[in-house]
Amino acid sequence: MFRHVVLFTWAEEATDEQRDAVATELRALPGIIPEIRAYAVGPDAKVNPGNHEFAVVADFDGVEDYLTYRDHPAHQAVITRFIKPILASRAAVQFAC
Amino acid sequence: MFRHVVLFTWAEEATDEQRDAVATELRALPGIIPEIRAYAVGPDAKVNPGNHEFAVVADFDGVEDYLTYRDHPAHQAVITRFIKPILASRAAVQFAC
Repeated sequence: MFRHVVLFTWAEEATDEQRDAVATELRALPGIIPEIRAYAVGPDAKVNPGNHEFAVVADFDGVEDYLTYRDHPAHQAVITRFIKPILASRAAVQFAC
Repeated sequence: MFRHVVLFTWAEEATDEQRDAVATELRALPGIIPEIRAYAVGPDAKVNPGNHEFAVVADFDGVEDYLTYRDHPAHQAVITRFIKPILASRAAVQFAC
C-alpha cells in the first residue's frame, strides 16, 4: 500500500464555512477518482495544543495511483478553489506501508 | 475510529542509523500497547519536494485509547530516546474518521 498524508493549518480569517467546504469537497473525490482505495479527512479533534488543523490520509495500491490522484483535475480543482484560498501551512509525507 | 497522524523532520546531522531506529522502535509498539488497532510508520518516499521526512498513522477505537497510547511509558521512551534527539520539527493532527 502507498499512503499519502497531508496536514494543513488555515489562515486566521478563514470562516467555518470555508473550513467545512474543504472536508465536503475532498470527501467527494473517492466517488470521482477510482484509484483511491481508502480516504479519511477531518478537522483536528483539539485533544492536544499546537496541532495542525486538518488531516487528509489517502491510500493507494501504489505510487502510480497516488500520482493519478495528485494530478487529477477534480483534486486540483479542490486545491485551487477551496484549499489554497485559506491555506496557511502544509506538511506532507507519502510512504509505503 | 480515532486516527492520530504525526509528521516529522529530522535534524540535518541525524544519521541513517538514528532515522532507521525510530521506525524500528515505533513498529514494536503495537506488540506492547494493545489499544493500537492499526499502525503504519515510514520514511517519506521522496516523490514530492518539500515534504516532511517521516510519518506515523495510528488508529484507535476512540480518543481514550489514543490517550493510553500517547501517555504509555513504552511510547514515551521511544520519543525520549529515539525521536527527540534528532527531531527538527513536528506536525500532528488527531481526528475522528
